[in-house]
This record gives sequence, C-alpha cells and structure tokens, in this order.
Amino acid sequence: MKWEHRHLLGIEELTKEEILLILEQAEGFKEVLTRAIPKVPTLRGKTIVNLFCEPSTRTRISFELAAKRLNADILNIAAASSSFQKGETLKDTIKNIEAMNVDVIIIRHACAGAPYFLAKNTNVGIVNAGDGAHEHPTQALLDIFTIREKLGKLAGLNVSIIGDIAHSRVARSNIWALTKLGARITVCGPKTMIPKEIEKLGVTVTYSIKDALKTADVVNVLRIQIERQQEVVFPSLREYTRSFGIDKEKLKTFAKKEILILHPGPINRGVELSQEVADGEYSVILDQVINGVAIRMAVLFLVSMARKENEEGKEI
Amino acid sequence: MKWEHRHLLGIEELTKEEILLILEQAEGFKEVLTRAIPKVPTLRGKTIVNLFCEPSTRTRISFELAAKRLNADILNIAAASSSFQKGETLKDTIKNIEAMNVDVIIIRHACAGAPYFLAKNTNVGIVNAGDGAHEHPTQALLDIFTIREKLGKLAGLNVSIIGDIAHSRVARSNIWALTKLGARITVCGPKTMIPKEIEKLGVTVTYSIKDALKTADVVNVLRIQIERQQEVVFPSLREYTRSFGIDKEKLKTFAKKEILILHPGPINRGVELSQEVADGEYSVILDQVINGVAIRMAVLFLVSMARKENEEGKEI
Amino acid sequence: MKWEHRHLLGIEELTKEEILLILEQAEGFKEVLTRAIPKVPTLRGKTIVNLFCEPSTRTRISFELAAKRLNADILNIAAASSSFQKGETLKDTIKNIEAMNVDVIIIRHACAGAPYFLAKNTNVGIVNAGDGAHEHPTQALLDIFTIREKLGKLAGLNVSIIGDIAHSRVARSNIWALTKLGARITVCGPKTMIPKEIEKLGVTVTYSIKDALKTADVVNVLRIQIERQQEVVFPSLREYTRSFGIDKEKLKTFAKKEILILHPGPINRGVELSQEVADGEYSVILDQVINGVAIRMAVLFLVSMARKENEEGKEI
Repeated sequence: MKWEHRHLLGIEELTKEEILLILEQAEGFKEVLTRAIPKVPTLRGKTIVNLFCEPSTRTRISFELAAKRLNADILNIAAASSSFQKGETLKDTIKNIEAMNVDVIIIRHACAGAPYFLAKNTNVGIVNAGDGAHEHPTQALLDIFTIREKLGKLAGLNVSIIGDIAHSRVARSNIWALTKLGARITVCGPKTMIPKEIEKLGVTVTYSIKDALKTADVVNVLRIQIERQQEVVFPSLREYTRSFGIDKEKLKTFAKKEILILHPGPINRGVELSQEVADGEYSVILDQVINGVAIRMAVLFLVSMARKENEEGKEI
Repeated sequence: MKWEHRHLLGIEELTKEEILLILEQAEGFKEVLTRAIPKVPTLRGKTIVNLFCEPSTRTRISFELAAKRLNADILNIAAASSSFQKGETLKDTIKNIEAMNVDVIIIRHACAGAPYFLAKNTNVGIVNAGDGAHEHPTQALLDIFTIREKLGKLAGLNVSIIGDIAHSRVARSNIWALTKLGARITVCGPKTMIPKEIEKLGVTVTYSIKDALKTADVVNVLRIQIERQQEVVFPSLREYTRSFGIDKEKLKTFAKKEILILHPGPINRGVELSQEVADGEYSVILDQVINGVAIRMAVLFLVSMARKENEEGKEI
Repeated sequence: MKWEHRHLLGIEELTKEEILLILEQAEGFKEVLTRAIPKVPTLRGKTIVNLFCEPSTRTRISFELAAKRLNADILNIAAASSSFQKGETLKDTIKNIEAMNVDVIIIRHACAGAPYFLAKNTNVGIVNAGDGAHEHPTQALLDIFTIREKLGKLAGLNVSIIGDIAHSRVARSNIWALTKLGARITVCGPKTMIPKEIEKLGVTVTYSIKDALKTADVVNVLRIQIERQQEVVFPSLREYTRSFGIDKEKLKTFAKKEILILHPGPINRGVELSQEVADGEYSVILDQVINGVAIRMAVLFLVSMARKENEEGKEI
C-alpha cells in the first residue's frame, strides 16, 4: 500500500486502505511527540502555508505545530490581512503562493468545494482544513484515530453523532470515515438539523437522544454554533440542551456503562455538553487534541512525499 | 539556590534570592546577545506559545525574540483571531494548548489574576506578560536589572515611581521587586492616581514632584494611558504634564546631578516625559529594551527547566 | 564592485553597477530555490523584522520566505496590532526594535519618505517594501530581473508602463531602474493619471494605448486601485478598461509579435488586464513572483553584509 495523493481534500475520496495508512503513519508520529525533543527532520526544507480564510485558532495552531515538529517552514496567512481584500481571486492568490515554491497549502475556507477548485488549478499540495459545511478531513481522522486508540478497533462499533448534522463538516467527514471502516453510525438531533436523505449515506437517523445513546460505544457531540442558531433555533438553545445536551443523567439513564465522549471543540459548556461530562472519565476530548497534531504530521508528510515521488500524482 | 517554580506569575510570590537568580541568569544571556550569532540551543525542541489577549507589540516581540534566541519554537495567538470569540472559556483554551505538548504559555490578559487561575488548572508553565492592573513581572525584572547594571546595586537606592500608580501593573511589580531588594520607594502622582493604603506596601507617598525628585537616584516614569484618561483626567492632560511631566527644567531644579530615567514604553513624548529627557543622557530606556530580551530568556529558561526536573514543581 | 549600503531605500539612489550587483546576487539565489532543500545558512543568527504598516500579503510573505530561505529569524509586526495605536512615534518604534538587536527592518508604510526618515535615525538596516506613492524598489528589481532573464538584456529595450503613473510607486521605481540600465520608457494612461513634468525623468508620455504598444518589447501593466478610483475615475472603470485595459485584441492590433507582459499583482482581471492576456503566452507574471523571492534574498543578504563589514556604511 502506497500513498499517492498530492492533496487531502476530503474523506469521501479515500479508500479504507488509505485511511488506515494515515492512521498508521500518525501512530509513528505520536511516538515522536512523547520524546524529550519532539521533532524529526522529515520535512526540512519544505515550506507550508496556513491559509485561513475563516477564523480558527485550534486547527491553525495544530497544523502549525505539526509542521514545526517535522522541521518544515510554515507561513501564516489570515484572510483579514490578505490580498483578498484587494479583490484578487482565490485562484490568483494560490497561483502566487505556488510560484513562491511552496510545497503544501493548508486551506480553511467558508465555501464548500474551495479546496477542490484549488487542487484542480495548481500544482501545490492542498490540504483541506475545513470547507464550509462540506468536509473537515483531519478532524474525522483524529476522531477515528482516538476511537481506535481507546477501543482497539473501529469495525462493528456503534457511533452516535449528536447535533446540527446538516451544517457540520465534522459530521460529514466522520460519516465517510466511519462507514468505510465498518462502524455503524446513528445521527441524532432535532429534525431541523438533520439533512433529508442522509440515510442514503448508510446512517441511521433518530430524533430521540435515548435511541442515540442506548447502543452507542462512542458519542461524538457536535458544537452548537450559537452565533448561527440565533436564526434557526430549535425552538431555543435551552430547549436544545434539555433535549439533546449530553449530561450525566442522560448518560446514566440511557447509555451503556462504557462509552467514549468526543467533541471537536471549542465546547459550549452547559449547552451541548455538561461541565461534568466534558471533564468526566469517558471524555477523550483532550486526547483528540494531541492526536490531532500526530494526524496532521502524517497528512503533511504523506502529501509532501507524494508530490516528491510523482510530480503528477493522483489529481484528487 | 535553585529555581523551582514551574510558572512566573508575579513578583509578589518570589523571594529575594529567586529574583537575584533570575538577574544572574539574565546576565549570562545578555552576553549571548552580543555575539555574532546571538543564539544558544538551550531550549531546542521546546514549544512556547505567546497568548496575547490584549494588544501589545513590544512585550510580544521581546518574548518572541527571547524564545528564538534560545532556539525554542514559538507560536503567536492573538485574541482577535482566537476561539475566545467562539465563546470558549479561557481554561478550555489553555487545556487545549497544553494537550498539544506545549511547554510554556506566555499570557497577557486584561483580567487581574488570569495567569494564577490558569496555573492552578494546567500543567503547562505559565508566564505572566501583564494581567490587568495587577502585575507585569518581566517588566519589573528588566527595570531592576537595568538599575543594577548602571548603578551596581539596588539596596539603599531611592527610587521614585511617577504616574498613575493606581492602574499600573508596572508600578505594582516594581514595588514588590524593589522592596525585596532593599530599595526605598516613593510613589508620586495626583491624588486620584494613588491607591489608598498603598503605604502598607512600605512605600512613601507624595503628591509633589519636587519631593519625588529631590532624593531620587532613579525615576521610573509611567506611561499615561491617554485613552483611559479621557474619563478620569486630572483635571486635564496638559495639567498633568505641567505638574508631573518630567522635563529638563524640573530635573535641573529639583533632582540630584546624577539620576537614571526609566520608562516602560511606549512613551507619550511631551506628556509624561519631555523629548529632551527621553533622549537625554540620564535616560536608560533603550537599555531597558535590550535587557528585556535577556530577562525573558532567563525566565523562559528557568521555568522550562523547573518543569523538566520536577513535573510537580512548586504550584506557584 | 562591492555593495556598501546599509539600507535599500529606493532605486533613485543606486548606481547602475549597484543594481547589476543585486541582479547578479539574485541569480545565485534563484539557483538555490531550485534545489530539493532550497535553503542556505547565509544569514543564520540574523534577525529580520517585517514591519507592515499597510496591509499586504504577497510582499510580506515574499520577504518572509526570502528570510527563511537564508535561515534568518523573522518576526512579523502588523500595524493593526502594533504600538502605533498607542500613539507612539514611528521613530520610537524603530529605536525599540533596534534595541532588541535586530539586523534589518523591512518596512511598508503609507507615507512617502518614511524609510528614509528611519534610516537617518537608526543604526538598523532599513529595506523599503513600499512607501506611499514614492518607491517600491524590490518590485522594480524583480521586474527588471525578469525582463533580463527572458530577453537577455535591458539596454535598448522599449518598455511601456500603463496605468495610474501618478500614484504608482511601482512605476516610479521602474522608471529609475530602467533608465539607469539603458531602456527606453514610455508611460501611458489617461491625463489625470500622468504626473506633470514626468518627461524630466527621461520618459516619453502618451495618452494613446496604440502608441504605447506599437514599439514595446515589454509592457508593465499597473494595478488600478479600484478603491481609490472611486473618487477620481476616468470617467469610469469601464471606460478605463475600454481605453487602456490590455486585452488580446489590442495586442493583436497594435503590438509587436513578441512582447512581455508584466503586472505587479494583485490583478484586477477584466479591468487593467483581460483574463486571456493574464494567463497567456506572453505573461511573465508568475515568473515575477518567484524572482521576487530571489531578489529579496539578495537584498537582505547585501544589506546585512554591509552592516557587518562596516558599522558605519553608507548613510543612504
């Protein structure tokens, strides 16, 4: 099995074997992170650009750290200070960055599909750090890495994803990843937050938190985007918390004894997740964070190597 | 004497010996700064985060330079682009940064006590880069380093601090540092800017610039925060300058022949300090800047080492 | 021929030989950029500050990359987050940065002459990255580097600069550079955009795009600053494009068969340059971008070396 992609755009395009290859590579890098000097010279001389067209701290610094641990040079470009303001097209921005001999561009963009468009139009490696409500592949990879690390497998597990499935790139990427690796997925939330025909992706839909919890080995709790919900609340934030917020009582009443709680962060404490559960014994939220660095090291490494070995590579 | 603190939160908690240890360490690093290649591999592989929740250029780049001179990796996070906007708690932000295997977080925050709260809740080393009107320990350390460098001692010196004592973290940290090292302190400013019961800290209070200058070996002139003073002016900026602004005439009329003028910057020229005095023979303001890098190298080094030798370390 | 300038402030002050020396140095660095590890240890231990008081992405990251390729440490300061907001003078900001043992400050500033003022008042090396409508020397250097690379010479070439000559630092620096190297320059644009008495610089003026194109070996198309043009349009943007926008038809009708098209970017596609021409066979716009990194490496190297060999150096 060899990695051949010059880009990481989404989980949808990856095979099961390719996903497993990333996890395996990340395991090696996770060991590096435990060393006294947690750095390897793997990408020395490579240049990586963090192009964030939406605000983000945690994903940006996770990628920045991953690059530094690999001894790559990394440049940060925030949309607010970029030429976008001067009316330049995204394609021109990317062509310019490419012309500066950059190896990989990590892009976060509000528009679904932006990384795909760029990948088709440049030779530089593109890593999707979140595109609109479409995909957030490194988040799903770190989620399944964490589940596998804790439970030893993915196939056959019951994973429930709770929240605003319709607007969540995290949900979408997780569904692709978990399905390919043989987990059974249930999505749960108010009707307004569940996209129509999502069953076609092979997931079970429920509007009952009880049903979502009762067989779950893993619960992935999505962030409620409070700023967005002011328009489309269900029917209010308080109501959401009462019906779908994961707290100790719901877990005790409905869930199995052993369960993993994941959350992509940042947490709205007391909204989608209670204080106790967020910091409780089943929470692996901080494991997700450290695993995120290892996953991103693996992705940056694999994408860079594919570019080196084969200037053409696979288009997608 | 050995340094045992995993954090540098304030001067108040340090002993005289600990303060002297930082100064001594900084002297070694100041020598490094004079070399053709002013870098040492001391903190290679360490990761430091500059978390600035208030705008600041000089303190931020002074810490950034200190980290780079020690060959640490440093990441900048500005509040404006951070997850704070998404409603995450400060504690969650710090726990997340900690989970990424960061060694030290340098924090500037508008709330007094924020660094203490964080130090209690994480395992990562916390360095206070200014918390509200409470403390700015590295500023006080570079101030006393500069005084000792120029005058050869601290004990027995008369130091006058002029300005808005009530709202100044620089004043507060200087009072702790100078008191512990045996200097005599006079604070001076309009009544509205002198906190009640400050005499309890062992300082002399005067509202007369003449009294503040007549015995002073050192004058530390605080920045008037013009933006804040629009509310509580005394009774106007012009009046403040006339009564408390340090100019050549006041120095000639009231002060000793030999005197050191310090200012933490940025200077409001013509307000708290005249053009002539800011650039004059007694000004050591630019010495403070270079010494700031050496002091911050020392602090980052000591805090990192304490963490290494003893994962528990002293709590505060 | 030896480089003796501690600063690079403008092209006006350089001799022909000095300009050629920069180009020659940049050729060496361009070769470095083609290597598997495109880095050299040339400026290891040097510290460079990118001080951008106007927004800019491409020039900022071009300099940042140049510094990293030379193994210098680089710090970014954006005006928005700087002490300028606190009312500090630019001179004090620079004196402070200088005191931190910085080697070179790259400055972009809205005021013409700012870099000259700073160079007179500090010991640190100053590189002008664009000062108001005055000069943008590294842009002109990369323009002529690109022309010489493609056409093998500069002397005797006909170069037409099209656009808002009056407000363009790119035009001004190009005029100095090209004149010194023996090219013949025509400037072209609407009357409101051509400064009076510009003929005194030895250029030909025309208001006819036909005349500008007919003898041109090279066309340097300036960016129309749409945001500015809302005040002084000629008489409208559409009209500008119709009269002066470079498209395939104008080239076919008026220009020589072989021609180079340059543009400093970011491009307003469909305004000063049509889609087809921007991406067409005569466009060397992306060559300019990669050459920009080589030119900036050369400038940072030469300026740093002049400082090292002679602490006094040439003032300008």
